[in-house]
Amino acid sequence: MTAKIPRNKENDYTREAAEARRALVREQTRVDLNHLESFSFEPAAVLPGNIENFIGVAQIPIGLAGPLLVNGEYAKGEFFVPLATTEGTLVASYNRGMKLLRAAGGVTTTVVDDAMQRAPAFVFKSAREARDFGVWVKENFAAIKAKAETTTTTGKLRDIQQFPAARFLYLRFNYTTGDAAGQNMVGKATKSACDWIMSVYPNIERYQLEGSFATDKKTSWVNTLHTRGKKVIAEARIPAAVLKEIMRVNVEEIFRARLTSQLGGYLSGVNNNGAHSANGITAMFIACGQDAANVAESSAAAVYAEITPHGDYYYSITIPSLIVATYGGGTGLPTQRECLEMMDCYGAGRAKKFAEIVAATVLCGELSLGTAVIADEWVSSHEQMGRNR
Amino acid sequence: MTAKIPRNKENDYTREAAEARRALVREQTRVDLNHLESFSFEPAAVLPGNIENFIGVAQIPIGLAGPLLVNGEYAKGEFFVPLATTEGTLVASYNRGMKLLRAAGGVTTTVVDDAMQRAPAFVFKSAREARDFGVWVKENFAAIKAKAETTTTTGKLRDIQQFPAARFLYLRFNYTTGDAAGQNMVGKATKSACDWIMSVYPNIERYQLEGSFATDKKTSWVNTLHTRGKKVIAEARIPAAVLKEIMRVNVEEIFRARLTSQLGGYLSGVNNNGAHSANGITAMFIACGQDAANVAESSAAAVYAEITPHGDYYYSITIPSLIVATYGGGTGLPTQRECLEMMDCYGAGRAKKFAEIVAATVLCGELSLGTAVIADEWVSSHEQMGRNR
Amino acid sequence: MTAKIPRNKENDYTREAAEARRALVREQTRVDLNHLESFSFEPAAVLPGNIENFIGVAQIPIGLAGPLLVNGEYAKGEFFVPLATTEGTLVASYNRGMKLLRAAGGVTTTVVDDAMQRAPAFVFKSAREARDFGVWVKENFAAIKAKAETTTTTGKLRDIQQFPAARFLYLRFNYTTGDAAGQNMVGKATKSACDWIMSVYPNIERYQLEGSFATDKKTSWVNTLHTRGKKVIAEARIPAAVLKEIMRVNVEEIFRARLTSQLGGYLSGVNNNGAHSANGITAMFIACGQDAANVAESSAAAVYAEITPHGDYYYSITIPSLIVATYGGGTGLPTQRECLEMMDCYGAGRAKKFAEIVAATVLCGELSLGTAVIADEWVSSHEQMGRNR
Amino acid sequence: MTAKIPRNKENDYTREAAEARRALVREQTRVDLNHLESFSFEPAAVLPGNIENFIGVAQIPIGLAGPLLVNGEYAKGEFFVPLATTEGTLVASYNRGMKLLRAAGGVTTTVVDDAMQRAPAFVFKSAREARDFGVWVKENFAAIKAKAETTTTTGKLRDIQQFPAARFLYLRFNYTTGDAAGQNMVGKATKSACDWIMSVYPNIERYQLEGSFATDKKTSWVNTLHTRGKKVIAEARIPAAVLKEIMRVNVEEIFRARLTSQLGGYLSGVNNNGAHSANGITAMFIACGQDAANVAESSAAAVYAEITPHGDYYYSITIPSLIVATYGGGTGLPTQRECLEMMDCYGAGRAKKFAEIVAATVLCGELSLGTAVIADEWVSSHEQMGRNR
Repeated sequence: MTAKIPRNKENDYTREAAEARRALVREQTRVDLNHLESFSFEPAAVLPGNIENFIGVAQIPIGLAGPLLVNGEYAKGEFFVPLATTEGTLVASYNRGMKLLRAAGGVTTTVVDDAMQRAPAFVFKSAREARDFGVWVKENFAAIKAKAETTTTTGKLRDIQQFPAARFLYLRFNYTTGDAAGQNMVGKATKSACDWIMSVYPNIERYQLEGSFATDKKTSWVNTLHTRGKKVIAEARIPAAVLKEIMRVNVEEIFRARLTSQLGGYLSGVNNNGAHSANGITAMFIACGQDAANVAESSAAAVYAEITPHGDYYYSITIPSLIVATYGGGTGLPTQRECLEMMDCYGAGRAKKFAEIVAATVLCGELSLGTAVIADEWVSSHEQMGRNR
Repeated sequence: MTAKIPRNKENDYTREAAEARRALVREQTRVDLNHLESFSFEPAAVLPGNIENFIGVAQIPIGLAGPLLVNGEYAKGEFFVPLATTEGTLVASYNRGMKLLRAAGGVTTTVVDDAMQRAPAFVFKSAREARDFGVWVKENFAAIKAKAETTTTTGKLRDIQQFPAARFLYLRFNYTTGDAAGQNMVGKATKSACDWIMSVYPNIERYQLEGSFATDKKTSWVNTLHTRGKKVIAEARIPAAVLKEIMRVNVEEIFRARLTSQLGGYLSGVNNNGAHSANGITAMFIACGQDAANVAESSAAAVYAEITPHGDYYYSITIPSLIVATYGGGTGLPTQRECLEMMDCYGAGRAKKFAEIVAATVLCGELSLGTAVIADEWVSSHEQMGRNR
Repeated sequence: MTAKIPRNKENDYTREAAEARRALVREQTRVDLNHLESFSFEPAAVLPGNIENFIGVAQIPIGLAGPLLVNGEYAKGEFFVPLATTEGTLVASYNRGMKLLRAAGGVTTTVVDDAMQRAPAFVFKSAREARDFGVWVKENFAAIKAKAETTTTTGKLRDIQQFPAARFLYLRFNYTTGDAAGQNMVGKATKSACDWIMSVYPNIERYQLEGSFATDKKTSWVNTLHTRGKKVIAEARIPAAVLKEIMRVNVEEIFRARLTSQLGGYLSGVNNNGAHSANGITAMFIACGQDAANVAESSAAAVYAEITPHGDYYYSITIPSLIVATYGGGTGLPTQRECLEMMDCYGAGRAKKFAEIVAATVLCGELSLGTAVIADEWVSSHEQMGRNR
Repeated sequence: MTAKIPRNKENDYTREAAEARRALVREQTRVDLNHLESFSFEPAAVLPGNIENFIGVAQIPIGLAGPLLVNGEYAKGEFFVPLATTEGTLVASYNRGMKLLRAAGGVTTTVVDDAMQRAPAFVFKSAREARDFGVWVKENFAAIKAKAETTTTTGKLRDIQQFPAARFLYLRFNYTTGDAAGQNMVGKATKSACDWIMSVYPNIERYQLEGSFATDKKTSWVNTLHTRGKKVIAEARIPAAVLKEIMRVNVEEIFRARLTSQLGGYLSGVNNNGAHSANGITAMFIACGQDAANVAESSAAAVYAEITPHGDYYYSITIPSLIVATYGGGTGLPTQRECLEMMDCYGAGRAKKFAEIVAATVLCGELSLGTAVIADEWVSSHEQMGRNR
């Protein structure tokens, strides 16, 4: 190809610039891009900060599920949940789970932790200097925090974890970031703190702003143990009779299948011993202007189930690294904002509410798929509703 | 809420049905859904099999990156790559990496494995019966394969791995599925095989169609070791001078940063010792009608880099579980199809080509971010282009 | 220190050489080594091949546990089990578990897999050459096997697994090794095969005999999935009444504690979701001339438990990488041989029998500790029997 | 078998009791136990608290390695190291590595962390109560610490980590335990604290003293990240000329082999990306009265290597969970004490010194094996010195 995307115009959001780029593609590939160019907003008013080299939009179908009954601390009552996906049966399956949980009295949700990270590595001559630097970091936490927070009004440096290895000290800066996801905010804040550290602490060979202990866009044990985003737990007690009536399965059947899956999951080394939380999370993330690449870490989960002394089914899912925002990022784009508003989750003060709704949705999907497998309806429902792939 | 989504109409794709659902939401939440209802296709013609309870579409902005120079076996030459995202700087960053790799002679890509799984668990009285059943499974592979393949013309049962534990035998059915992702195809085929097994093999207590050894929508060691989807390797040799000129970094600098990150990643227990492959993969998946929930497993990766004897930089990424389709699923939806066609990746015979382009894109993004961190341009570029979150 | 251990005499096993080395230590450190030099065998007759620079022996106390009732395929009936340890309560605890399992009808054991590995890495110009080499390896398995087996009469090359990444092809050679542990045997055989490959296959940049896919002396997912040594499953059904009478706990109590531990173990990222299999394995390994460093991989395990429909307790442990020998290594040393002979496990044809006894012992220890924790006797028993550390 | 080990006499340490137990074995198995009964101490004076049902001792040959040159904070200068093993070439290989590191100026060692754990799980009606309990635990740390420390003069409760999941709060009590390993000490202390908590905090359904977040005798991510025992780093800079002269390898050769192994280790999911630290650790543990079952967690490690700007080799190993004691446990047994005394590591105030010597020994073994593989001497040395297994 000789043609190139016009340089220095990455951030030109006029319709003309988009058309020029599409024309280039059309010319080179002979593909019309008629659908891409169909969107309902004014790009220059909406897109700066969200995209470069804009050429149009992907249209992702949204299905409606609900009402979902949530007994959260922030999300209380019934919600309609928008799910953007192209996978047949997904919406129907989550919807079925929501029906079950409504009949069971709803999903109880609790946000138990909240932190966003940047994790710089500091390099020294030897491990001893690195360790001693760690002592200094502890003693000077207040000053480091002050430097970090000069760059942001929202981000608060909560604590710094230390992971020494070889001649490095890996530091994990944990922040709260309000209703934004906060990855950029904490990057900027941590850089400010590190630059200051470099200016006052002697004999640091170099530092790098990320040493792979934040594991952005990656699932990891450090995040499963210590949270990236929100750690949310969704749980419910489903009466045996309700399970039988709506899902056509016994508590004993579903529990023994769970035990078999848990052993399988443990031995296969999976980051999620549940069924398919990524499905619901991704569909909500796409619909609601979240960064869907965070599904990488947000898909980690731990299901825990038991039969209660009364013979009912206690079922829970712990999502350690659910990264959500109700402000910033893609949340303000038109369709995305509508989807958030549908749940009264757009704007300040709503991130934990949204996290609870996501977690509750996930729980419904787990039970729906889990019971379909038992009731031998899994394959048949895909045949009925999905494309045969 | 007293209102419910009209029952038994999940698969009603008329505009009226969509409007009725939106009206319900509007009534309950007082949110207009003007943007959601803006789409450029006829739902009844397009959506069946992809969504239920359709209410409209999410509009996800697409940026253009490229040309990307690929030296693959299936993808050869230059490609424009559509990236659907709402994260500022992402497109610019990948584009910058593509420029580097073009100057370096392109990205070499190789698909080294290809398999899609369903993993049933068979339950016996004791481990001994389970093990003996495993012997029978080996001896009767041809018959099992025949039964599985009665349900599909595309799927081929390649082999069955065995993982015995407790009184279970977990079987991992590995299929090739042509140009479809194949999750439903292999579910149906495996069910057919298992039902037949139950009819001929005595004393199986029960079986369940999935025992958590396929780890659909989850990252796992079994998938990292044995592939889910395509295992693709992208690699390049970047001359030191090119790296210096375009990225303003030395080979030594970027390599020592890599070593530091690799130790950090190893110790943090990350499923991907690279930087952010999930960003490029997710953006291509959303643009191109892939199942973005598969980012959960597709985000696993292993970067390997070294300084060559000539002082240049060898850099590679191995993506063990890249799940892609050029046929079925969401690939036929209008904007999605346009994006695939832009790379001549729509339809039969193109899945490996598309996998190569995705992997090459990922490699560009790794080098772009990696060098930005070194050149101290990471935070500043986000400030310039991204929203401050 | 000016003094050095006499050179070139590492393999001098005379009593004089040992005394000379002790004298050196005594002179440098002023520590008498009176106990070290107390042993009951003639070093030159016994030690060659097991130690260098011999100076004496460690005396590790052995406690007797049992009888242990095993319903194995190789181990049938009751056995006394020697446990070498310095940890108070360990022997008593295992002994208590053996009493329980005797009352419950014994431990059923099954060896479900058997393989020892060496895993060379082959290096190529690019991934594509590496992958193509993999095709050749498959096609030439018979020749590779023949070359490998020229070096051993016992070792048999079972199969070769392939793990491509970057420009490497990691091969995992799986052997059966009879009644020896076989690490050296498979190293020699694999080297022979690799040297031959290098002589016939063109354009291999280099190979290294181990590429970290055998993970000798390390626990790993590849070994947990695919076995290193024997994969053994021990299981039992313990009547509720027996559990109550002997251990003073209810089935429900012990099962709910198990579920809590399993969730904890899953989230802490443990290689063994049981309690303390390493205790029994190490104590038997030291007593019986096994390589105790293999506890690193042999300590991996997966416990699976459930309440049976009759209200009894099904309990099992799957040990994926139990490395044992009844021949070679330290098995022929005097005390070690006596310990093996005590279970009729010395010499050819007994490795699987010994593996079964180890696994059965482990199961007893799991139930003993598990019930002690429930019955609130854990801390008190250590106070009674152990040292206060 | 009708015969049983005499009951209620587990702690009878007279020679007569030992003989009675041996007679029982002899009678049942027709195996003489002449060697087992050869030991050099008075059992009743030495063994109480270390063993039950004593029948004799395992004689494990000890080889001498060294001098090992350590530049530690606690271990300074040269040491002879006793290694108890039955694996031929092990002592010779470590000895060879010690020679290399002496020539390179010694091994620098640093203890960077120190903690021993017990991790109780508290069970509540729901996640919310569990989380709120966590707030209380933070606020009442001083009181909890006071209660825990009533049971011990040595153990100090450092901090309590919290891991909420489902309706549980897993607490990880981190203690320092002086020169003892401390597993029993922290069990007792934690029980005391938990019993007090149960008496003052309302509505705890139950607690269990271990919820699998201490992962005693198991390797785990939580321990690799947060230490169990000592976290020790051993490092060295080896001049290229020294490496060439003593080991016959170039820096470039050994480094590229390291990179290949690191990728392999990362992909195989290994808990130790080095070569064989378990060998040296186990041999020192057995010789020196440590609990060898702790090899399960002590075998975790991370090697980090690089070529320095001067072309020399920087090599390090980080051992996150090295569990050592110089007091209590088996340290006071006769041969064990001699081995500790040989390094002036017996008794109070020496645990960190001993940890440094172990880590330095491990580093020597890594370089010895690593270079042998490169120099193609690995297999041949085993043939020369080891038994052919």
